[in-house]
Parts: sequence; C-alpha cells; structure tokens
Amino acid sequence: MAHVTVSVEYGIHCLLWLVGSGDKPLSSRDLAELQGISPSFVAKIFPKLEKAGIVQASEGARGGYVLAKAPEQISFLDIVDAIEGDKPLFDCQDVRLRCQLFGARPPTWASKGTCAVHAVMLRAEKAMRDALAEQSLADVAQRFGRAAPAAFFGEVQDWVSDRVKDRSRRSDRTDGPDKPSPRQRRKSKREGRT
Amino acid sequence: MAHVTVSVEYGIHCLLWLVGSGDKPLSSRDLAELQGISPSFVAKIFPKLEKAGIVQASEGARGGYVLAKAPEQISFLDIVDAIEGDKPLFDCQDVRLRCQLFGARPPTWASKGTCAVHAVMLRAEKAMRDALAEQSLADVAQRFGRAAPAAFFGEVQDWVSDRVKDRSRRSDRTDGPDKPSPRQRRKSKREGRT
Repeated sequence: MAHVTVSVEYGIHCLLWLVGSGDKPLSSRDLAELQGISPSFVAKIFPKLEKAGIVQASEGARGGYVLAKAPEQISFLDIVDAIEGDKPLFDCQDVRLRCQLFGARPPTWASKGTCAVHAVMLRAEKAMRDALAEQSLADVAQRFGRAAPAAFFGEVQDWVSDRVKDRSRRSDRTDGPDKPSPRQRRKSKREGRT
Repeated sequence: MAHVTVSVEYGIHCLLWLVGSGDKPLSSRDLAELQGISPSFVAKIFPKLEKAGIVQASEGARGGYVLAKAPEQISFLDIVDAIEGDKPLFDCQDVRLRCQLFGARPPTWASKGTCAVHAVMLRAEKAMRDALAEQSLADVAQRFGRAAPAAFFGEVQDWVSDRVKDRSRRSDRTDGPDKPSPRQRRKSKREGRT
C-alpha cells in the first residue's frame, strides 16, 4: 500500500467540489455520487476532515458539508495529516543499540541523540511534508478550473441545485407531520383505521 | 507499516559494518550477529543489495559480502530503492475521470496530462527522493565514527578477524580431503572399514 493512500485521493477530489459549491452544503452521498466513488468511503473520510477543521457539517435535509475556511488556507499537508493521521515515513527501531559488542547495556555514545540513519529519514520526510504544505486546495482547484470549459461549471451547479431540491422534497414528504410514512400507513390499515 | 520499512534500517546498519571492514568479507550471518538482528532477514536483504550493485558477494569459507563501490558513491536513495523496489509514495487511481457528469466517456480536457492532485504528490515524492539522494553511506558512517571511541573500532576488527578465522578453521575440519565428516565416519564404521 502506498504511503499516501487512496482515501486521500478520494478526500481531495471531494474537497475540490466543495471549493466550487461555495456555501451550498453537499452531503457525503452527494459528494460520493458526483465523484463516482463509494459512499461508505466518503462517510469515513469526512468526519476526519471535520475534526481537523477543514470542513464544517450541518444537519437536516438541506445539510451537508462546506469548507470550514478559505481553500487558500487548506494545504495538502493539512488534508493528508487529517486523513492519514500520524504516520511516519520511517519508524526507527533503534537497531543501532543492538550491536553484539555492546552486550546488555549499550554505551551512552551509542544511544545519545537521534540515530544518524533516522536523522536522514527525518530530513527526507520534512522535505516531503514541506512540498505538501506549499500546495493549497485553491492552487489545485485553479488548475482544474483552467482545464475545464466554462459550461461544465454551470452543469455542476445545476446538478448540485437539483440534488438539494430533491433532498428537500423527499424530506418534506417523509418528515411532514401530516404525512404518515408507508410503515405507519400499513400499521393503520392492519388496525382498521383507514 | 511505514513507507521505508525496517528492512532498510537493518540493511543500512549492516552496510555500515562493511564500510569499516574494508576488503574483509562478512557473511550475512556475521552481519546479523554483529548487529543483533535476525539472520533470515539479512539473508533476504543482501541479495537485493547485490543485484543493485551495492555489495559484492564471494563464496567459500572466507567468503561473504564487501561493498561493490566506495561508500561515497552509495546514496541512501540507492539503498532504499534496492530494498523496497518500485514503491510510489502515492498510487494515483485517476479518480478525476469518475465524475458522474462525464458519463461513460470522460472528456479529453479531464483526462489530459497528469492529474493536478497526482502532480502535487509527485513533487512531494521528488523532494523526499532528492533528500535521500543527497546522503551517502560514507556521510553517515562518518557521523557514527565521530560518536564512537577509537577503541571500539579495534574491538570490531578483532571480532571480525576472530569470526573469519573461526569460519576457516571449521571449514578446514569439515571440508579437508583427508578428513571425513562425522556422517562419513559413521557410515565407514557400519561398513567395517575402521
């Protein structure tokens, strides 16, 4: 498995739709369908992004996710850390202390400070993290924006508006106080109330 | 599991002993015992380092591994690539093409060139690889060398010389043309030749 997993790829592509949706919340199901990925995957990723302060969630039929801050303030490093958690590039086992000549007690000179091998790996990890920190969600959204024709964004807006309307309609039908659910209707029928 | 695994840590610490052993070959068992790690692990790692031209193997009782080139010419990147193989930091699934609005056929503008998300990950990977390429086995051996007292290197040389002598003695006892092995002696006894 690669160090930066497919969850990050899914997460970033979904976040890019939120850059375009502005203050219109998208549910994890909307995002999954729009991006063509598994809803259960998105439902696992977004609570992590919310916990990291990258997205904000609202409840209810018109609820869903919006970005919690400007996309210029969300770096790729923020997203990778939120989704992957604390995952070092190299997990030092302090093999340096196991030299047979040390016996049971490694000398102080051998255990002092960070192992020189580990130090090289930490520098490589820092270089990788710095490169991820340099790129914001806004940078990449702009690159996608430049590639897509203007009409495409209109299509996306229409799709989002339709989804939100559809969700609201379904909610009014099922949650309205005067409209019993199919289950309630079947129960009433059995009890001879119709 | 970390991206750079414990096999790399084991491999590098064993290679550091070869920097010190000069042209005296060390077997994978010598290296495992000196470093206090599993011989079967070392026996899996060193053929990979040999294939990558980092170490050279010689056979026989006095055989073993030596560095195939100067430690200044062996970078950490060479070692990581030799042991880990082709292992990308991020394995792009081209999720960008799965947008529901594209239908079965993603438009050319969406599939052209490298995905902008993948491009960020490739830059981060390059930064990490550049940092690993900058460090040589000689650099790190020098850092270990500065930390250890001079007497320690004498102890290591003695340990290595004892091991090589011991291996040669055992080999002379068992492989000498005039000295039958215990198994041959038992067979001869059964056949009444003694």
